[in-house]
Amino acid sequence: MTVNCSPQLWIYDTTLRDGTQREGLSVSIEDKLRIAKRLDQLGIPFIEGGWPGANPKDVQFFWQLQEEPLKQAEVVAFCSTRRPNTNVASEPILQAILAAGTRWVTIFGKSWDLHVTEGLKTTLPENLAMIRDTIEYLRTQGRRVIYDAEHWFDGYKHNRDYALQTLETAIAAGAEWLVFCDTNGGTLPHEITQIITEIVKVIPSDTKLGIHTHNDSDTAVANALAAVMTGVRMVQGTINGYGERCGNANLCSLIPNLQLKLGFKCIEENQLSQLTDTSRFVSEVVNLAPDEHAPFVGRSAFAHKGGIHVSAVERNPLTYEHIQPEQIGNRRRIVISEQSGVSNVLAKARSFGIELDKHDPTTRKILERLKDLESDGYQFEAAEASFELLMRQALGSRQQFFEIRGFQVHCDLGQGEANTSALATVKVAVNGKDILEAAEGNGPVAALDAALRKALVNFYPHIAAFELTDYKVRILNGHTGTAAKTRVMVESGSGHQRWTTVGVSTNILEASYQAVVEGLEYGLLLHSQAEAAVVGNR
Amino acid sequence: MTVNCSPQLWIYDTTLRDGTQREGLSVSIEDKLRIAKRLDQLGIPFIEGGWPGANPKDVQFFWQLQEEPLKQAEVVAFCSTRRPNTNVASEPILQAILAAGTRWVTIFGKSWDLHVTEGLKTTLPENLAMIRDTIEYLRTQGRRVIYDAEHWFDGYKHNRDYALQTLETAIAAGAEWLVFCDTNGGTLPHEITQIITEIVKVIPSDTKLGIHTHNDSDTAVANALAAVMTGVRMVQGTINGYGERCGNANLCSLIPNLQLKLGFKCIEENQLSQLTDTSRFVSEVVNLAPDEHAPFVGRSAFAHKGGIHVSAVERNPLTYEHIQPEQIGNRRRIVISEQSGVSNVLAKARSFGIELDKHDPTTRKILERLKDLESDGYQFEAAEASFELLMRQALGSRQQFFEIRGFQVHCDLGQGEANTSALATVKVAVNGKDILEAAEGNGPVAALDAALRKALVNFYPHIAAFELTDYKVRILNGHTGTAAKTRVMVESGSGHQRWTTVGVSTNILEASYQAVVEGLEYGLLLHSQAEAAVVGNR
Repeated sequence: MTVNCSPQLWIYDTTLRDGTQREGLSVSIEDKLRIAKRLDQLGIPFIEGGWPGANPKDVQFFWQLQEEPLKQAEVVAFCSTRRPNTNVASEPILQAILAAGTRWVTIFGKSWDLHVTEGLKTTLPENLAMIRDTIEYLRTQGRRVIYDAEHWFDGYKHNRDYALQTLETAIAAGAEWLVFCDTNGGTLPHEITQIITEIVKVIPSDTKLGIHTHNDSDTAVANALAAVMTGVRMVQGTINGYGERCGNANLCSLIPNLQLKLGFKCIEENQLSQLTDTSRFVSEVVNLAPDEHAPFVGRSAFAHKGGIHVSAVERNPLTYEHIQPEQIGNRRRIVISEQSGVSNVLAKARSFGIELDKHDPTTRKILERLKDLESDGYQFEAAEASFELLMRQALGSRQQFFEIRGFQVHCDLGQGEANTSALATVKVAVNGKDILEAAEGNGPVAALDAALRKALVNFYPHIAAFELTDYKVRILNGHTGTAAKTRVMVESGSGHQRWTTVGVSTNILEASYQAVVEGLEYGLLLHSQAEAAVVGNR
Repeated sequence: MTVNCSPQLWIYDTTLRDGTQREGLSVSIEDKLRIAKRLDQLGIPFIEGGWPGANPKDVQFFWQLQEEPLKQAEVVAFCSTRRPNTNVASEPILQAILAAGTRWVTIFGKSWDLHVTEGLKTTLPENLAMIRDTIEYLRTQGRRVIYDAEHWFDGYKHNRDYALQTLETAIAAGAEWLVFCDTNGGTLPHEITQIITEIVKVIPSDTKLGIHTHNDSDTAVANALAAVMTGVRMVQGTINGYGERCGNANLCSLIPNLQLKLGFKCIEENQLSQLTDTSRFVSEVVNLAPDEHAPFVGRSAFAHKGGIHVSAVERNPLTYEHIQPEQIGNRRRIVISEQSGVSNVLAKARSFGIELDKHDPTTRKILERLKDLESDGYQFEAAEASFELLMRQALGSRQQFFEIRGFQVHCDLGQGEANTSALATVKVAVNGKDILEAAEGNGPVAALDAALRKALVNFYPHIAAFELTDYKVRILNGHTGTAAKTRVMVESGSGHQRWTTVGVSTNILEASYQAVVEGLEYGLLLHSQAEAAVVGNR
């Protein structure tokens, strides 16, 4: 329900600038354009695109956006003030920011006296002149200016008067927004509240304020919320909290907190429901694994385990969930584990379209089998496909697509990295017919997978579309060396579908084999169900 | 500097109970014992060990701790109140918690009326009786009781009077600590402040209060800090923030915030400097990759890039770092500059007793090789034996104990768990003589190791005392399935000595082979150095 009287709050995304400072993250111009378009769809009003004066990639990014502009969002170019003792009109970085062709620019300046004298090696008055000249010049060139007060909170604590002078200078020069930046991320929420409350008393009451926080104290989101509660109306952050060191304030947490809990209007309701997808899209584009435990948008954010708990959450979600996952495009998940009770098994079965009776001895049988396997080292929390096969086995409804008669794998080692192929041979029976096939792969698991697909593809041509998308290995009881049990998880995919299977053995290849074979079997099951559904719909 | 007048704050760790609820995390009894000992060293006063009534693994964990008690910490057993309409003395879960033999127990009860009527399906007065009876009974059995008020904040918002009655009941029954739990994690910091401030006015002023928060709103740490600032003196959380859904409040962030920023005394200064190591130790034991971007303890938490920035941070760290990384055992990292690389290599060489010259071209050569290998996925931080071999190679001082001419491994798969042996064949030259040997093992890596030792033992009899003590596998670039690179770390041992080697390949067996072969070679090197030392001492 959108309440029209909700106060407006402006989200300012800096994923494409501050976010890319994260160690290990790098993006192409094409990646940046894709992310910008997606943020535009999400309804983010301000998107900071980069620093065109400092980075040739960012110059091109802005040029390309002039060719194909975004639909709604203002793309903002970011830049420092002019350097000490230079003429503003002849500063190359300021010419570059004008050439970016954006309506809005963000200029950052120094608030902390120590950074002026020790970092810039100039005088305190010259720093004020740098702020004034830069903003005034950009205003005369028709730009609207957001002023980022760098190291604001540290600066204020060290030299309150000087810090305030920098703000007053920025306002007088024509900046429309003043943004308090906790650049080192060391400030705690109560200090944010206290300092902004003090400032608000001494600057013109119509000054528009923003907040930019970092997560070094693990309070970036709370710091931004604290600022909003003192009257700040622009919130800067990044998708998935990407950023230098420990990251920036995470917009995927801030937007739902602000909109669903504090009643601000940030984006439209139908845009909010794209939040989870946007988070995963961005992690996909920057090629980082999504954080499964991320607040709001993580895969585990609305996962439930434990018997009593699960039956309660199904009766009344409010009692166990702080928001409805659908509001932000996430979903509830029932997780299977050691601690599972019967009600978990029932709920899980239902999610696979299998109706089980609580009093049916089969239900108990599944539970017993599950516990045995888990004490052997299997884990079904993340291997739902293997769990479904286990259930079907107990119910007598497991389809036999193929039967393995023999499987061998052979490797020659120590021949150098260019020569690490493995050979697998499989004998498999399909519809009473034996097939013998062999295949190579750049490792024994790839070879196993290749041999089995080669043997099956004539019977099940759609198997050609399956692929192994992830492979994880965990040694279960360390400290017993290579005799330890190994658990292998294999993620398989076909088009947009993904499923995970598990295998356990002291022999890492045997464990891999189990998971690979079940992965193919489950893919065949999904396909046959999809076909049956098509037939049923006719 | 420890200020003696700092107010004391009690940290309560629940990594071993609530932390293990994290999806994808599972621990053995041995793992739990190792973590408990480490937390004890860190100076954590309360360690919640598990729920002995609900989980057979936890029963054994507490028994084992009775055999080998911790040095300082109180280990706490966790349990619910008795069930509705039962006699407290005949409740199996309460007998189990008494059998755990701890001085302290934590009892959780329902604060939210809805959970009483809908979850427990009982009456509001019966829930109060359950709280009273359980706590009183445990007190008569000589236990000290911490009361966890589950769903406290939601309960208070829905039915303030009833929520307060549950607290009053717990106090009257003899609970020493009342802990406010934000079980669903949906509460924001300002609500924590407001609600606890209201409660403090209506309960006895000497009541000791605690806080237990979850990270569903991305504010778990800030919520705990807000509670502390209203007078709460026990903080519950987990190492690395592990926990159900989005995790619990992260003690690795809370402890430094509380101690270094808010001036509370939590643990000793020399213990605080173990925080980073403890974080990594726990992630190692539970086999989850450490979060490199974690506040305070992450590898990137004090990472700096860029030239000017780096020289500024070296001149005056205060201007770019919110705390001194050494205080918590982390360190500043300058993201790879050539110069720091060379000094690293020099320092490393020195630790192996090898003196390198900064200007020696060999030093540069080692650095280049190191960079190539690290960009290929090798990691030498934890594999110093492989790094020493690499250095000796570059210096021309690598001894050749044996030369492998060929190595093959063969497995028959799918024959059932009892039949998972692998066969390895090796051809190796020692002192110009070729030896061919074959051996079986309950997995390909064990077979490789066995075959190689069998071939070498006649030349190096002391090799019989070597053993593989740990084996770890990490898939380096997920999402490319079995074609991903695999890094294998092998720990070998002989007597009290331990050394670690590393191998990387797309083929998991090739990577294992590299690490196993270097493990044996390094063992032989250590032995020959020890013999040389004995000769030298004569």
